Amino acid sequence: MTVTKGVRSRKSLSSLELIPAVRDGSTRAMARLISRIESGDPERREALTELYRQGGKARVVGLTGVPGCGKSTLVREYAKAHRARGQTIAVLAIDPSSPFSGGAILGDRIRMTELTGDPGIFIRSMASRGALGGLARAALETVDVLDAGGFDTILLETVGVGQDEVDVAQVAHTTIVVSAPGLGDDIQAIKAGVLEIADLHVVSKCDKQEASRTLTELRQMLHLGLNAGAQTAWKIPVIASSAETGEGIEKLLNAVDQHWRHLHDSGELADRRRMIVERRVIKLAEELVRDRFAEHRRQVGPHLVGLEQVVARERDPYTVAIELLNAFK
Amino acid sequence: MTVTKGVRSRKSLSSLELIPAVRDGSTRAMARLISRIESGDPERREALTELYRQGGKARVVGLTGVPGCGKSTLVREYAKAHRARGQTIAVLAIDPSSPFSGGAILGDRIRMTELTGDPGIFIRSMASRGALGGLARAALETVDVLDAGGFDTILLETVGVGQDEVDVAQVAHTTIVVSAPGLGDDIQAIKAGVLEIADLHVVSKCDKQEASRTLTELRQMLHLGLNAGAQTAWKIPVIASSAETGEGIEKLLNAVDQHWRHLHDSGELADRRRMIVERRVIKLAEELVRDRFAEHRRQVGPHLVGLEQVVARERDPYTVAIELLNAFK
Repeated sequence: MTVTKGVRSRKSLSSLELIPAVRDGSTRAMARLISRIESGDPERREALTELYRQGGKARVVGLTGVPGCGKSTLVREYAKAHRARGQTIAVLAIDPSSPFSGGAILGDRIRMTELTGDPGIFIRSMASRGALGGLARAALETVDVLDAGGFDTILLETVGVGQDEVDVAQVAHTTIVVSAPGLGDDIQAIKAGVLEIADLHVVSKCDKQEASRTLTELRQMLHLGLNAGAQTAWKIPVIASSAETGEGIEKLLNAVDQHWRHLHDSGELADRRRMIVERRVIKLAEELVRDRFAEHRRQVGPHLVGLEQVVARERDPYTVAIELLNAFK
Repeated sequence: MTVTKGVRSRKSLSSLELIPAVRDGSTRAMARLISRIESGDPERREALTELYRQGGKARVVGLTGVPGCGKSTLVREYAKAHRARGQTIAVLAIDPSSPFSGGAILGDRIRMTELTGDPGIFIRSMASRGALGGLARAALETVDVLDAGGFDTILLETVGVGQDEVDVAQVAHTTIVVSAPGLGDDIQAIKAGVLEIADLHVVSKCDKQEASRTLTELRQMLHLGLNAGAQTAWKIPVIASSAETGEGIEKLLNAVDQHWRHLHDSGELADRRRMIVERRVIKLAEELVRDRFAEHRRQVGPHLVGLEQVVARERDPYTVAIELLNAFK
């Protein structure tokens, strides 16, 4: 009886009512608010507005790389090393699973269970498809919750294959790009667009022989200045790591610290924060347009005149898009 | 002298002036207009409005699959078989290369050069990053040009890894999803979200032994009705193909024809056209928001008050996004 009552009363807490517990560092309250974000609950909005204003203390680290590059293992080792230094860490992993195949890839997370007894580590997976209101919005709102929850570091892990995933990894203070030796050409090519966003490179699986070639290639690329980072004073490091031997993890943590100090001392942190906010606001504005379109459709009915005219080739999509956008007010 | 004059006068043709040549089927004029689309030339707009109204005759086929699944080879064989049937075909391949790694993957296209002597085949690659004004816009405007240019079929080839790429493949009358036997688990998982959009499945490399397992898995999935297509009367075929033996190509062409007839006879074609237009208009509206933001910034200066307030945590991104969106009129 008492248990049932307790559960019921906890269930009925509004998003706003969850705020004090989130700020006290309750991972249970954070998890609940994150679920509301994922389900697109409109009431979360007020809570997020509140939490956002109080946030900004956490360091956000983005980590991305092609499938099979050993991201999950690296993240586990990273989290463990972080804890060993006495710092708390939250990991948000964006998985490219569909609502339909339902987290086929989430099994990966099981490798992390050895960490889950520790309240200083919080791990959460988020599907990259089917998130109501867009991946970027849900992921970044989750970062706001974890930030308000008091985690020292928030690690945002994404698969570096789609623009959305790359965008998310980029909305971080420090972005780590993981490469693995010996992956096929096709998959390496996908990576091309991702390499540019790195503040730090990690080559995983460095116990493998082919790793030295990958290290050399990355270093040469950086030496040639073929990187956005080349415009700043920050010298992008290339770190060899191995989950087998434990090599490189401490180096990686130190490099992330150095990058943070660099951002601070050079004044680049302000620019980075401005860029993050700008990307985020634009993404949100785009999603609002989608929402308003859906709302407009609900009000006007299934057959919008403008769309029917485009179907009939009487008018073109661009003209109608402008018209609709202007009607959304 | 005469040559120089000729070149100069050709160069100065406006996008609108290119229209008659495009409609006459000049691939040179089409290529030029496509380049203007890619570079974001504002003058292309009027030409596209004109061309869109006159289009709608071509059949648009989307083809997508994970890296390494043998898409390019299949596309080449598909194009050849099409020509053998006396039909013209344009191939637009969306490559996930960055402006920076500059078409590392375009080398793939070289495999297609054996086809390029034939005016009934047009092949064009488009980078998926760095396209001014968004990938979807550029790709679909290119389809409009090729449609007006009189091609019977337009094949839109994308790598099925990012949401953008999947979106593009889905804006087709018929969408083919290519799977390959024996790819790693990581890469197969990415595919999960892509399988759902198939009107037709192809399993490539069927000379390989592992292919029968992939065929069986796909057929079981379809049998279980785990597919959006299950809601219609269309029975999604799974076709085994091999570029080595030539197996399956004729079957694939026949299946695309059958799907087209099905769309026609069932009345689904109208729904499909409506869906394509709707997706397209929403995408355009989103891109317009991005454009208006950039324009607003140019007018107001680099430091928008709203953004600065978000950086200072005085206000939250969502509130400011709404405010900016409403100010864009």
